[in-house]
Amino acid sequence: MGDATCNGTHSRRTPPSDHQLFEDQFEELVTDLAEKDLDDPVLADALSRLREVLVYNAPGGKRNRGLSVIGSLRELLPPSQLTQDAVQRALLVGWCIELLQAFFLVADDIMDGSVTRRGQPCWYKKDGIGLDAINDSFLLEASIYRLLRRHCRDQPYYVHLLELFTETTFQTELGQALDLMTAPPGQIDLNRFTMERYKAIVKYKTAFYSFYLPVAAAMYMAGVASEEEHTNAKHILLEMGEFFQIQDDYLDCFGDPAVTGKIGTDIQDNKCSWLVVTALEVMTPEQRAELEACYGRHDDASVEKVKALYNSLQMPELYQKYEGESYQRLQKLIACHAQNLPHSVFLNFAKKIYKRNK
Amino acid sequence: MGDATCNGTHSRRTPPSDHQLFEDQFEELVTDLAEKDLDDPVLADALSRLREVLVYNAPGGKRNRGLSVIGSLRELLPPSQLTQDAVQRALLVGWCIELLQAFFLVADDIMDGSVTRRGQPCWYKKDGIGLDAINDSFLLEASIYRLLRRHCRDQPYYVHLLELFTETTFQTELGQALDLMTAPPGQIDLNRFTMERYKAIVKYKTAFYSFYLPVAAAMYMAGVASEEEHTNAKHILLEMGEFFQIQDDYLDCFGDPAVTGKIGTDIQDNKCSWLVVTALEVMTPEQRAELEACYGRHDDASVEKVKALYNSLQMPELYQKYEGESYQRLQKLIACHAQNLPHSVFLNFAKKIYKRNK
Repeated sequence: MGDATCNGTHSRRTPPSDHQLFEDQFEELVTDLAEKDLDDPVLADALSRLREVLVYNAPGGKRNRGLSVIGSLRELLPPSQLTQDAVQRALLVGWCIELLQAFFLVADDIMDGSVTRRGQPCWYKKDGIGLDAINDSFLLEASIYRLLRRHCRDQPYYVHLLELFTETTFQTELGQALDLMTAPPGQIDLNRFTMERYKAIVKYKTAFYSFYLPVAAAMYMAGVASEEEHTNAKHILLEMGEFFQIQDDYLDCFGDPAVTGKIGTDIQDNKCSWLVVTALEVMTPEQRAELEACYGRHDDASVEKVKALYNSLQMPELYQKYEGESYQRLQKLIACHAQNLPHSVFLNFAKKIYKRNK
Repeated sequence: MGDATCNGTHSRRTPPSDHQLFEDQFEELVTDLAEKDLDDPVLADALSRLREVLVYNAPGGKRNRGLSVIGSLRELLPPSQLTQDAVQRALLVGWCIELLQAFFLVADDIMDGSVTRRGQPCWYKKDGIGLDAINDSFLLEASIYRLLRRHCRDQPYYVHLLELFTETTFQTELGQALDLMTAPPGQIDLNRFTMERYKAIVKYKTAFYSFYLPVAAAMYMAGVASEEEHTNAKHILLEMGEFFQIQDDYLDCFGDPAVTGKIGTDIQDNKCSWLVVTALEVMTPEQRAELEACYGRHDDASVEKVKALYNSLQMPELYQKYEGESYQRLQKLIACHAQNLPHSVFLNFAKKIYKRNK
């Protein structure tokens, strides 16, 4: 890694970054899933559909989840134990997490009636796709287990990964169920927006699969399987996941679109966001009446009124306070609960997400 | 089993039938899935949704698939080895197959725009459900892996069952993808209806999960895990599955609604049925033109014309011929391929499905 500062103009070869390795593996994985193994010619049309679904929906995200597997494994194992095969498998398990997310996103977009995703039309919105996208989302999920079977079947952690993925899937689905019943598209009822419900949705719908899953997978791959260590890691990572989502909610309204790269629409979309939940806790009945008249509306005047209300309630200050406290809480959790695990596994994560502005 | 002819009016207790045991297990299983284990109070609403989804969608079928697990296991193991726990687990794995089917049916009904299922409104058609049913279908699927984990984790066949369920799920989804692209709702194109495509859809969409899955699960539970024996069983069971579907297609048009309990609508629904595929193989260009004008239409006159065409092409006779040949082929397959497995596993199945009229 000594020449990591080299770039393409040098003649000495720079070892490829994990990011590069991860991207490079995708094409191979698609071939794996849509060509090899299933040599039944009658399946050709179905497999070419699978290829299309994979190529459209699996890449394009930020890859944080997928890359966390190899990133965490590098902290957990000494370089001598990290063979090339082990790296390949960690990248692959990372892709399984990206596939899990693609499965959720394709389906969530249908349920939410969304129009675009990652700067392109949602899959179900494409010509000729429509509700067939439901079966396509199933194919994305099934691909996880085909990849694990093909590449990890002989590993001692195979069953752990199968259980980890199926359990995390269930938790995420429970979170989605809670989210759908808390903020049904088109129905505005602020009574449902409590902090307790907010935290439950974040924990189940996002934190398990985005934060615990990649680190837990790396732990199993490194031979760390004790329930106690997993419970400890889960504590830390779910706290981080909660913070991450709260920050995301904050940036949706108060972030600079030039930096975040997106224009937030949580207010218009009647989202159960940390901002609205926190505002509801501190506002007067008069302010609440105003919020009820404006939240979940698409006209600019309503949106501006909600933002003005947030400002008058000092939401940016409340957020800064929350961020500081959460950071302290996390440091304590790492000190108390990380135990045998290298703290760097968690600290690297924390560094990436605290004080980000995009 | 000596007093199996006793009925409720006798004072000696009749041992409960597998059917009764199977039904009785459902309530317990729902409690298992929606109450125990997850004691996080914030999940209460999501778990009560899961209970509703299970109760509405899992029961109500004919149970043939679910009951085949215990039925096959009774053929594979001597009674002395079939402990009460083993029976309980076989019933439970049977329910996992019913849950897999419920997962597919809830989703297929959305994709097909169906209105009723098993004599009641499709789940997604119920007030207030709509496309949230997509996530509900996911919960049904996830329930399979929670049940297997809770009840079979310590069994030597646990991983085999995990792989069997994930693989069968993928095969069924490939079949659904093929079906959707062959007969897209609202688009009539008889050129897509070939016998090769028909057989591929039946094999992948129906036969794997309805015929191979229950017997394969019982084989693993009985300690029969060799690839050769599974390949052999698969041969036999996929042949049976194909026959079963062809018979279903035949009865849809030519069965007696008073006996089958349903009024067929394959012609109206533009289904890629054995009848239309076979008719296309033997008809004149003039007859094909007539079929093209009438197939997939909902008016009675068009439907009657298609039926008249089927009759003039002697479809009932062609079907009888096919049934006889298939039965012979199956007997041969059983004789050649059943090897170490008791033939009764397959013959019991065959008895139930050949020459049925409902």
